[in-house]
Amino acid sequence: MEWITTEKEKKTWELKEILAEDAPGKRACVCGAVQRIRDMGEITFVILRKRDGILQTVFERGNGPDPSVLSKEACVQISGVIRAETRAPGGRELYADGLRILSRPDEPMPIAVSGKQSGASLETRLDLRPLSLRGLRERARFKIQEGVARAFREYLQAEGFTEIHTPKIGARGAEGGANLFRLEYFHRPAVLAQSPQFYKQMMAAVFERVMEIGPVFRAEKHNTRRHLNEYVSLDLEMAYLTDFTDLMRLETGYLAYLTRLLSAEYAPELALLGVTLPQTDRIPAVRFSEARRLAAEKYGVPIRSPYDLEPDEEQRIGRYFQEECGADFVFVTHYPSRKRPFYTMPSPEDPEVTESFDLLFRGMEVTTGGQRIHDWKMLTERIAARGMDTEGMEAYLSAFRHGMPPHGGLGIGLERMTMQLLGEENVREVSLFPRDQRRLTP
Amino acid sequence: MEWITTEKEKKTWELKEILAEDAPGKRACVCGAVQRIRDMGEITFVILRKRDGILQTVFERGNGPDPSVLSKEACVQISGVIRAETRAPGGRELYADGLRILSRPDEPMPIAVSGKQSGASLETRLDLRPLSLRGLRERARFKIQEGVARAFREYLQAEGFTEIHTPKIGARGAEGGANLFRLEYFHRPAVLAQSPQFYKQMMAAVFERVMEIGPVFRAEKHNTRRHLNEYVSLDLEMAYLTDFTDLMRLETGYLAYLTRLLSAEYAPELALLGVTLPQTDRIPAVRFSEARRLAAEKYGVPIRSPYDLEPDEEQRIGRYFQEECGADFVFVTHYPSRKRPFYTMPSPEDPEVTESFDLLFRGMEVTTGGQRIHDWKMLTERIAARGMDTEGMEAYLSAFRHGMPPHGGLGIGLERMTMQLLGEENVREVSLFPRDQRRLTP
Repeated sequence: MEWITTEKEKKTWELKEILAEDAPGKRACVCGAVQRIRDMGEITFVILRKRDGILQTVFERGNGPDPSVLSKEACVQISGVIRAETRAPGGRELYADGLRILSRPDEPMPIAVSGKQSGASLETRLDLRPLSLRGLRERARFKIQEGVARAFREYLQAEGFTEIHTPKIGARGAEGGANLFRLEYFHRPAVLAQSPQFYKQMMAAVFERVMEIGPVFRAEKHNTRRHLNEYVSLDLEMAYLTDFTDLMRLETGYLAYLTRLLSAEYAPELALLGVTLPQTDRIPAVRFSEARRLAAEKYGVPIRSPYDLEPDEEQRIGRYFQEECGADFVFVTHYPSRKRPFYTMPSPEDPEVTESFDLLFRGMEVTTGGQRIHDWKMLTERIAARGMDTEGMEAYLSAFRHGMPPHGGLGIGLERMTMQLLGEENVREVSLFPRDQRRLTP
Repeated sequence: MEWITTEKEKKTWELKEILAEDAPGKRACVCGAVQRIRDMGEITFVILRKRDGILQTVFERGNGPDPSVLSKEACVQISGVIRAETRAPGGRELYADGLRILSRPDEPMPIAVSGKQSGASLETRLDLRPLSLRGLRERARFKIQEGVARAFREYLQAEGFTEIHTPKIGARGAEGGANLFRLEYFHRPAVLAQSPQFYKQMMAAVFERVMEIGPVFRAEKHNTRRHLNEYVSLDLEMAYLTDFTDLMRLETGYLAYLTRLLSAEYAPELALLGVTLPQTDRIPAVRFSEARRLAAEKYGVPIRSPYDLEPDEEQRIGRYFQEECGADFVFVTHYPSRKRPFYTMPSPEDPEVTESFDLLFRGMEVTTGGQRIHDWKMLTERIAARGMDTEGMEAYLSAFRHGMPPHGGLGIGLERMTMQLLGEENVREVSLFPRDQRRLTP
């Protein structure tokens, strides 16, 4: 028997330690993957990939270990002396006098990961995703995506939200039977959750404010640049709101926190990808009917579907508020009732529209939210009016029957939010291992 | 059009504001659910349930609003004056002069949520989970569970880990074909992820250190007090470890951080549930063969299965180290190879055992972890020796073929960890909406 404690012996150096002001002149031992090798004759540069950037190591011929045994993607441990070198990334290099090979690749990489662009198509890069992600730019997108989710959690936690985990296997979906993945669950039919909607609403009567970050599953047969069949949803639900504008203020607060967090802690990744952070100090809110009228008039495109926005209409509305107000975001409010789910609160002054909103970010919907009906009678009347089958909704309805606070919430698609933030053309770029109609691997 | 900013008008008070030292004498307006009503004749106490505790409000007969219109689980907004009152919870009460009913229940609750124990069986409480969770004690378990997950994330983030999201629908499972939930994915067979194992390993070559908190799905036909068919897994994987003891030190660090976080920020819930936090400053580590020998000798129970621990054997090993060292946790190391997955690193000095461990917490396994094989040839030889089918593993294997760092990781069952922390008898107590062979709703 021995005792395990948290005491660690310092064995290897991280990049930020090497970049410290007083590091030059010190001995260090560093682990990393060989990203690139530049043989200059007398000197060979071996560029190591570390989790937070790259490090230049220098091997001098005839003086210390021989780097010619190395190949790209070998994992190594290199020891030597840290030197200041303005031409090196971060202004540091490691002058190597020790080399230990930790693992060797069996084959050269089928895709370039050290240059600025791999040159490969999206399809190829997705087929080779475990390898293509080793590229610094591809990797950086997911570091920023971490920040998008982290900001959501940190901001809401400070606002008194409790993080919950609701089941992904269930007996029925929140929005009815369409677009559900079906499975057999111990000889019973079951479905994958297309949203934590019912659960988060029920939990608003327990914790008042809840959030969840988790996967949702939609068997939609869309094959577009903005749809995934499995994605990560940032969900929140809050009780005792005054009206649905509370939710828009909360989301604005989150977005402001997000941009602060990214500036503070994700600056290298933002710089690498050349990202310009959006304006988040104030966001225009405009009614659905007005937004489409303004965009239709300005751009001369007639309104087609009367009850919902088409993707190109979202783009024009985004463009309108970008041009007219310099706004990256716009809340579109008061969507028509008939295109919103049964639980959406109708507007008191006009029951044909709802106390709901979408948030468009640079012309694409990234959030749907709104106030929910909390009165049991009103809810059951709505369900009856729509001719819905309530089988499997017993627990949900019983929560309302036994008293629910006024509440509302929203859901943000993590990948879409990241896509718009980074200016990517395809949402698959910002899903580590995307799932679409054709893609089930890797 | 209007502008949405983050500015909020202060409308209602939260409990912590009412508990502030300078609060007595101030006017406040409070929202909450009616937890209990005590009619004393001249005076009626209405106990409000808030997200962070309860608040006593006082209605005086003939002076202000009439509380007789209220019933349990009504949601209300009460205004009045804050008074210091040592007999009230938290030493404060609200002397009411205004009452607004926000919603009324249609029916009395079928289960008591205001007393210390509801008296109802686990099955009944799970059937009525959206309602039973309104009880303060049931709710408190999930607040503490939030802390368990939050500590994992915060601790690892400070250690340089990146949080990732890997797909839950895939073409095959990490541990082979057993215990998988199967579904149809656009006319193709697919499975639900029983672990993010392959993905987190592949990502160790990208981010070096990754973590994921997400659902995992196991179609095991166990029906025990410690199994769920869907649970939340806290996963991590790290590159460039020296050996697998690095992982045990990291987990010990997490547990120490967890107990500090719970003490600091979850004290009311710990007190409500009477939880004694475990010792986490040092944890004994003992080899599998030695642990079972010590427990078998001390308690006179012969060893049955030679390659794995039975639940009652885990209990005896936990008891042994509790009695002999006062330890709540024990790492059991060097499990036999034949009971560990193919990717587990064999021990250099004895290939019949592995560089792996389980963590037992008060006699129950809450973590499995270990170093993985990183060498492509060694991995493929292992796969061949086990006669495994590699179909669907192409991407995983290609990551090794193209160079993997030495790495290892672990997975913690969130519900089991919470169960042992709280001393619950059944893991279903600490799953918001548990999924087992019989239970697919609510």
